Amino acid sequence: MDPVTLADIRAASARIAPHAHRTPVLTSRQIDRLAGARLLFKCENFQRVGAFKFRGACNAVFSLSDEEAARGVLTHSSGNHAAAIALAARLRGVPAIVVMPTNAPAVKRAAVEGYGARIVPCEPTLAARESTSAALLAETGATFVHPYDNDLVIAGQGTAVLELLEEAGDLDLVLAPVGGGGLLSGTAVAVAESAPATKVIAVEPAGADDACRSFRSGRVIPQTDPRTIADGLRTSLSERTFTLIRRHVADIVTVEDDDIIAAMRLVWERMKIVIEPSAAVPLAGWLAGRIRLPARRVGIILSGGNVDLDHLPWVRAAS
Amino acid sequence: MDPVTLADIRAASARIAPHAHRTPVLTSRQIDRLAGARLLFKCENFQRVGAFKFRGACNAVFSLSDEEAARGVLTHSSGNHAAAIALAARLRGVPAIVVMPTNAPAVKRAAVEGYGARIVPCEPTLAARESTSAALLAETGATFVHPYDNDLVIAGQGTAVLELLEEAGDLDLVLAPVGGGGLLSGTAVAVAESAPATKVIAVEPAGADDACRSFRSGRVIPQTDPRTIADGLRTSLSERTFTLIRRHVADIVTVEDDDIIAAMRLVWERMKIVIEPSAAVPLAGWLAGRIRLPARRVGIILSGGNVDLDHLPWVRAAS
Repeated sequence: MDPVTLADIRAASARIAPHAHRTPVLTSRQIDRLAGARLLFKCENFQRVGAFKFRGACNAVFSLSDEEAARGVLTHSSGNHAAAIALAARLRGVPAIVVMPTNAPAVKRAAVEGYGARIVPCEPTLAARESTSAALLAETGATFVHPYDNDLVIAGQGTAVLELLEEAGDLDLVLAPVGGGGLLSGTAVAVAESAPATKVIAVEPAGADDACRSFRSGRVIPQTDPRTIADGLRTSLSERTFTLIRRHVADIVTVEDDDIIAAMRLVWERMKIVIEPSAAVPLAGWLAGRIRLPARRVGIILSGGNVDLDHLPWVRAAS
Repeated sequence: MDPVTLADIRAASARIAPHAHRTPVLTSRQIDRLAGARLLFKCENFQRVGAFKFRGACNAVFSLSDEEAARGVLTHSSGNHAAAIALAARLRGVPAIVVMPTNAPAVKRAAVEGYGARIVPCEPTLAARESTSAALLAETGATFVHPYDNDLVIAGQGTAVLELLEEAGDLDLVLAPVGGGGLLSGTAVAVAESAPATKVIAVEPAGADDACRSFRSGRVIPQTDPRTIADGLRTSLSERTFTLIRRHVADIVTVEDDDIIAAMRLVWERMKIVIEPSAAVPLAGWLAGRIRLPARRVGIILSGGNVDLDHLPWVRAAS
């Protein structure tokens, strides 16, 4: 049996309901015409902290016993997961610690601090991150919440597609981006168990294609030296997410950064919503013809909307 | 009695319902905190053609008799109204002609042509525009639809606030931008007749403050040499819109371009939606403290989302 099941995902839905937004499902006639299919976009850019990551973090933090929770939660991340943990902890009224490399951008530090977390800086190496985290966990008794290698986080991420299926009705296909695989594995389990006729396909940047290579070779191949504008998708799968993905995902395809940027811009221009590059990856894969499966009704998870508005990928900034 | 009444606006609602989007009302905890009030944003950036202008154009085009409609509609504009007329005419299956100066940006011509209108170029002078239009009207028997100096257009624009009031419940205040005054006058009539306890205040760019000066002096003072980033608000009031505004609007205040750009960016960053500079003007006025009326629940019309993504006002482009 899977370590994460539909029952876990339904429990997560109920647990996070008082805190998370039920995000809208939007459509665009004009994009449908370009796509040759009906596309239904689940808008997690409108989720709290601006990304689906709040679902998993919230589920993990609110699953703790009162005693565990009182000792706090800890994570190491400089992205959306850190902000999500910080907000979830604040909502539960417990401390959050985020171990962040000293070279993390000031704007990301400020965002996490804005949600009330304590930031502990460390040298920007894996060893420093792990030793700093271990020392803090020993000292505080806090619970570590990994960004994706965690069953409660995976179950939380799976709640988005349940809402999409409820609202959109029958879908031939669901497309999700893949980085560490938390969103993808939760999505795949939820779809496999609740809508078995619907296929799940993941799209990955060609410059960070560890999930695609792992899927084809049948074992986890970690990502080294990722090069892509989709900064949320540079991480590697874990054994936990890979196992679920291998079992429930129909295929993983890749797409080039130019196509990602074009899809991102298309969504801004036609749908009038702000999405981050990682969120544009599935649409880019569809529009670039990388998905061979014929489908008339396609659900797409728009994973987040946190972008640096001063440095948009299609604008050449002044020096 | 007003030339446009609540009954006209309700009739417009019914007439455009099969064609126009009922746009969402969005809120943001974070912006509420900055604003010190509950702000309810009516998102006309999600309207067809990306702006409220579709409401008025659609009402005007679908109010024509079959005989009138068959001869077509004509307007002169290079902005959202031209696209709106083109789409409304296509939906009715009748011809649209748009008289556009030869110096209009290619991207605007392409948008209007994309909706199937015929573009007739003219020299970029008022005289050339009027003589070209007059000749075409005589030749075709088409109906001229002014962007705002038209009762049916005003009634159509007033439908947005009716939807906002239905969804948001009691409001202390509604804020709208003002250019030619079509949106503002329709909004003010709708609110005055359907929610008389709610005040309407208009916000205008300081660099195109003809409505504010007209309001204070009691007569229409046309705008000369407008200088503002809010390109939708550079036009002057007409006697028709001024009369309604004077009767039903509580106040008109102005705001500087820097505040408009900051408010626009805030909406993109926090609400993850794309709005054009003109749409940010009311929020800018509130955040800059230009509105003296105390209010706890404030409705704001976000007028549109058509921006040039290559030239965002806060990004200094490379030469």
